[in-house]
Amino acid sequence: MPTTEVTIFANPTPLHQTREVRVGIIGYGTVGRATAEILAHNAEEIRRRTDGVSIRVTRLCRKGARSSEAGVNGIAVVPNWEQVVNAEDVDIVVEAIGGTDVAYEVIRSSIENGKAVVTANKALIAQYGEELFALADRKKLPIGIEASVGGGVPVIRAISEALAADRVQAVYGIVNGTANFILTQMESHGLEFGEALSQAQAAGYAEADPALDIDGLDARDKIAILARLAFHGALSPADIRVTGIRQIGATDFHYAQRLNSTIRLVASAERNPQGINISVGPWLVKRSSVLAKVDGPNNAIFLVGEKVGTQMFYGRGAGGDATGTAVLSDVVQIAKHIARDQTMPNMLSGFHSSEKLVLSERAHPVQWYLRLTVADRPGILARVADTIAQEGINIDSVVQEPYVSKERLSFVVTLEPVGELTVNRAVHPINKFDFMLEPVLLLPMISSAGE
Amino acid sequence: MPTTEVTIFANPTPLHQTREVRVGIIGYGTVGRATAEILAHNAEEIRRRTDGVSIRVTRLCRKGARSSEAGVNGIAVVPNWEQVVNAEDVDIVVEAIGGTDVAYEVIRSSIENGKAVVTANKALIAQYGEELFALADRKKLPIGIEASVGGGVPVIRAISEALAADRVQAVYGIVNGTANFILTQMESHGLEFGEALSQAQAAGYAEADPALDIDGLDARDKIAILARLAFHGALSPADIRVTGIRQIGATDFHYAQRLNSTIRLVASAERNPQGINISVGPWLVKRSSVLAKVDGPNNAIFLVGEKVGTQMFYGRGAGGDATGTAVLSDVVQIAKHIARDQTMPNMLSGFHSSEKLVLSERAHPVQWYLRLTVADRPGILARVADTIAQEGINIDSVVQEPYVSKERLSFVVTLEPVGELTVNRAVHPINKFDFMLEPVLLLPMISSAGE
Repeated sequence: MPTTEVTIFANPTPLHQTREVRVGIIGYGTVGRATAEILAHNAEEIRRRTDGVSIRVTRLCRKGARSSEAGVNGIAVVPNWEQVVNAEDVDIVVEAIGGTDVAYEVIRSSIENGKAVVTANKALIAQYGEELFALADRKKLPIGIEASVGGGVPVIRAISEALAADRVQAVYGIVNGTANFILTQMESHGLEFGEALSQAQAAGYAEADPALDIDGLDARDKIAILARLAFHGALSPADIRVTGIRQIGATDFHYAQRLNSTIRLVASAERNPQGINISVGPWLVKRSSVLAKVDGPNNAIFLVGEKVGTQMFYGRGAGGDATGTAVLSDVVQIAKHIARDQTMPNMLSGFHSSEKLVLSERAHPVQWYLRLTVADRPGILARVADTIAQEGINIDSVVQEPYVSKERLSFVVTLEPVGELTVNRAVHPINKFDFMLEPVLLLPMISSAGE
Repeated sequence: MPTTEVTIFANPTPLHQTREVRVGIIGYGTVGRATAEILAHNAEEIRRRTDGVSIRVTRLCRKGARSSEAGVNGIAVVPNWEQVVNAEDVDIVVEAIGGTDVAYEVIRSSIENGKAVVTANKALIAQYGEELFALADRKKLPIGIEASVGGGVPVIRAISEALAADRVQAVYGIVNGTANFILTQMESHGLEFGEALSQAQAAGYAEADPALDIDGLDARDKIAILARLAFHGALSPADIRVTGIRQIGATDFHYAQRLNSTIRLVASAERNPQGINISVGPWLVKRSSVLAKVDGPNNAIFLVGEKVGTQMFYGRGAGGDATGTAVLSDVVQIAKHIARDQTMPNMLSGFHSSEKLVLSERAHPVQWYLRLTVADRPGILARVADTIAQEGINIDSVVQEPYVSKERLSFVVTLEPVGELTVNRAVHPINKFDFMLEPVLLLPMISSAGE
């Protein structure tokens, strides 16, 4: 066979015919809009940097759009997502509608139609990631999920590529900017939870229905994704213990301050001898700790590797521009492969394993913060102390603010280090005492994990 | 032509024949050794995560090794680097000898022989990166340089992949762990520079010849690489203004403390209307700033993107394990492509441009710290103040510690915000006064850049 023919068939599509990569965006809310705008704004710069790969939005699905509508820059604006995932002129589908119903169909259909996919949808990936990545593997197509955790902070790349040769001991941090904004407002201005929530809604950080953020479900989905990538095993988000921040009051920040601490909502996954401990909940953290210094809607994610030690990544965890930049980081990387007519190796091996992660309790005993709210009368502290003593737990300190009323008295007990099961055995009977006006608020006193 | 033949030539090597990727390591110091050890330790784990890509060290070049020497795990240990770069059984060469002479030959020959290259050699990449990447491009081979900046901190990926669709406004931070260790020892224990340097050497953080670290040359090479990736233009490390830390004394930390500040060696590159301002030198930073909180041999690198906002990456900046992990992150990524018989798109587009970056002065006026060391006599402050006034600069404060001697008196003048050229016009005549015992120590008072 002549050599020339070998060359022709070894590279069947000449490079210059595939240098334009076409993107379809489904959903035109904050993320979809920012993605389209940043791409339009920086298209020429990206083309120059990628040595000539031209990335162009060709289709945009917006609910209620009239099919005939002409978008900016000649983009076809269509009302139905099928008109994007079935389109000939789309190589990469950006799913930006959120939720887990239609979004699931969008991604599945896109892959089945031979399109690469990029998404910021943490709920969908946490719940259906394994299935979707398996499908994508069969079709030799990539799914980019950099934007699903940490907004613009490239923690997905860090955990799956930079630590490709290391063993992750722990991944933890502040991954929900809304909850963090609320907590730092409470801390700075002495607000009650409800007031801080209203401010967050006014500032555009919290949705009208803020449950996903303040009940820790958004953080749960994110730590589920990070744990999968870190520990290479399957888990269901529903198996993760989650506590939100609704129970935190202004009084807790008063007590925290007296303990040189503050309160942060932390999502955490760490390896211990029995398995992986994964949880989402508020921690009482030392004011000198890095977690305490993360304020407003920012994110900070810690990665602890056996060899690489502790790393921290910090930045804007939400917002259209940060998330759109993360979406486009995946789009550009995938486009480089498409332009070369290559399939892209899947960098997210954590989603390949269907072997379930073994979940376990926190291995190390930690100190605990218990805030009790009671109708005051003599003998309360004696009964609480006695119950704690019966579990063999030592009390570290008892703190009581002087300004509170007798009808609704709050005080705090801190405990010396003890395991989670043990402290729960003490809290359970305390919650049943008739002087208790609400359940004990129980916070671990930890300022860093996995070390 | 029958279809079967097309298939054969489109994918001439079946996947299962190329699943073993063979690594040759040249240089067996801290980095080479750690790379080999981590790979051996985690080989099975990596194979599982990469869905079956087996990465194995086949050759190791160690100076003075006898050719017949048998290494661990059947690795051929050879004395000459040519025996690695010419070897049939090597796909990826890890250059771990350092320096710019032999290392240059190693990388050039490796690429010419069709090997991918991974290196931690910042001096070499800063100096010869453009030429080496051009050669690698022609040969369609990747060069991995994640380990060249930030040790285990994946800042190369962050800047070149995560911000692929954004415009970088600034990149700056603490990139030399040795200098940072020395400065934090001086800060914490009131040491003079020489004492802290001895401690750094005793702790294994500083080389016998510490010039590259304490004179800022290592930081200069690193910021040269980061600036290239961030701003996509060529620059020579020699064009970067560098000030080291030899001039900093215990007395400066006393004065810094009185100004609620401390001192850090910062490498910085920021975009301004006139061009790119790049410098390496000690900054007086607020104690409340993140830069001030980076202690010991750690690194912290800030990236400011137009859309993504400010991000920070923190972790161990040096040491065999952190650097070896970074080397292997590139090895694994390249190996995934080799195992699929694919060339790898070059992610480091910043090295493609031969167009020179326009370098400029710092755009924004900043406050300045001037420490003068004089033989005391009446009228000194008047003459200094007059010289400063002649340049139209306002003095913000004058600070003098009471404990110093008249024969060698140190005092500090801080200036209201003014440009670098202006302050230099004032410092120049002051340095000529006969009462000056050493040149003015001039530090910008900045706690963050590019915002």
